[in-house]
Amino acid sequence: MTATPIFSRTLKGSVASIGEEALIRRIRLWLGTASPRSPAGIGDDCAVVRPARGRGLLTVDPVALGVHFDGRVPPRAVGAKLLKRNLSDIAAMGGRPLAAVVALALDGRVSVRWLGEFYRGLARESRRYKVPIVGGDVARLPGAFVATLALAGEAGGRVLTRTGSRAGDWIYVTGALGGSLASGHHLLFEPRLAEGAWLARRGDVRAMMDVSDGLAKDLAALTPRGAAPALFGAMLPRRRGASVRSALSDGEDYELVFSVASGARRGSLETSWRRAFARTRLTCIGRFVRAGALPPDALMLKEYRGYEHLR
Amino acid sequence: MTATPIFSRTLKGSVASIGEEALIRRIRLWLGTASPRSPAGIGDDCAVVRPARGRGLLTVDPVALGVHFDGRVPPRAVGAKLLKRNLSDIAAMGGRPLAAVVALALDGRVSVRWLGEFYRGLARESRRYKVPIVGGDVARLPGAFVATLALAGEAGGRVLTRTGSRAGDWIYVTGALGGSLASGHHLLFEPRLAEGAWLARRGDVRAMMDVSDGLAKDLAALTPRGAAPALFGAMLPRRRGASVRSALSDGEDYELVFSVASGARRGSLETSWRRAFARTRLTCIGRFVRAGALPPDALMLKEYRGYEHLR
Repeated sequence: MTATPIFSRTLKGSVASIGEEALIRRIRLWLGTASPRSPAGIGDDCAVVRPARGRGLLTVDPVALGVHFDGRVPPRAVGAKLLKRNLSDIAAMGGRPLAAVVALALDGRVSVRWLGEFYRGLARESRRYKVPIVGGDVARLPGAFVATLALAGEAGGRVLTRTGSRAGDWIYVTGALGGSLASGHHLLFEPRLAEGAWLARRGDVRAMMDVSDGLAKDLAALTPRGAAPALFGAMLPRRRGASVRSALSDGEDYELVFSVASGARRGSLETSWRRAFARTRLTCIGRFVRAGALPPDALMLKEYRGYEHLR
Repeated sequence: MTATPIFSRTLKGSVASIGEEALIRRIRLWLGTASPRSPAGIGDDCAVVRPARGRGLLTVDPVALGVHFDGRVPPRAVGAKLLKRNLSDIAAMGGRPLAAVVALALDGRVSVRWLGEFYRGLARESRRYKVPIVGGDVARLPGAFVATLALAGEAGGRVLTRTGSRAGDWIYVTGALGGSLASGHHLLFEPRLAEGAWLARRGDVRAMMDVSDGLAKDLAALTPRGAAPALFGAMLPRRRGASVRSALSDGEDYELVFSVASGARRGSLETSWRRAFARTRLTCIGRFVRAGALPPDALMLKEYRGYEHLR
């Protein structure tokens, strides 16, 4: 855990004390090689980016103080999470990231030191996943810190969406679920970019999304009309110490959930997966059945509420 | 001015009362034809967009309650401004907009009615400028309303950046400057997309940007090394009632400022402009001179501070 408080106790260490222009210069320094020079990077009205090969992807997600993180989270981890949660959305479509822009809305008392760590954490992931931070905006927002990252990407050929599953399809999930906050997984996770791209190339994979608000809530978007997911508690891959309820409703898992055609050769899929991703667990957690045909021992997902963003 | 308060006095009319899923359904209704169906619109992990022809552009800008607007501004105008200020950045590069995503961070007490008007205002401009709203995110943020829009675009051939001016170049500005807040221009402006694209096609236009923080501050970014802008108060196109100080430092003008090669046929440029844009004023406001050669009657721009975002 960090010793760097987000709000500076003195004016001297605050972003207000150095002003906007100096702050933007610092941001460029903190980002270093993660931010190319203008016009391919920070410094012009827009950033100029390479066009997508094939179809383009666009997504946006923020991190806000008091909502997505609190003062106990190291600022580097906050910056890293900001990029990674957006990368998880690109992964969920089987895409590749191209470039990101970051809009900061922050109180003038935010500590320059804290913000420097935040950007260094962001820069590290930016380099790791080869997605440059090409621009952004800085605005004042009393009492708050919100960083919103928008990510442009490209489809790796086929775009794998949330729709396309059919009754009878198998349901798979990567990694393990539940206990993300307690275990630190919500900060340490690795977006499943390689896995998502691999799955998008397989014709027997029908639909995909990432698990961010909890499987019980998210899975509704993957479920075809007239069908229901038949899941069984014993089949759910749970993080150490996580209950079935936790695995279904905690959220912030950033794993991929996808459907596989009922007639697919599942043994071949699983063997190929293990060869490609020896370190990423893959679990068949059930299948879609006709809405009236849910087995009596299947989990009643309505009883497990996922993360609700507005209450 | 509006009678719709941003915060609902009762739980019943608040976004918290309807919850996230219902809110997202409403947002899709409010946006209507401004938002295509998934996966080209709201409803998947990412939006799928047509790739840029030529180079891509990416920009991001927010509107925040208490910073970019207050409770007296009609919510439709706030939504319109959010898109238009981003469009102005695309215009400043001579580009065309492709698609936008919107991240909302808002207090649960925000009124559903207010938010509906906000989205209807956004949708109207989205249709006018043919830039679909393809996705977004909704997050809780106690005590605040921040909407952050990221805009993907494409260059219309040549990308006109802020760099490239030389000592001797003429400085031009579109429209009039100053008094943007008092006159309502900051809400009513039309981003100079057609003008920006036209200028980018002319080889004698060297560099361009939009005026958002005030000409005195912004012009520094257009000024070549070793040079200084020689401007004269009498030449500045001012909005009715605006002083020279106001024209230089108020900001939120959303006009284009650009440089024209010293050897260019200015008469031909100005005649062609009037033919293309009869309703958009074009004014030569001075030229870049060597730093030591500033005429004694030129404006001392350092004395006019532009908008400072963090104090």
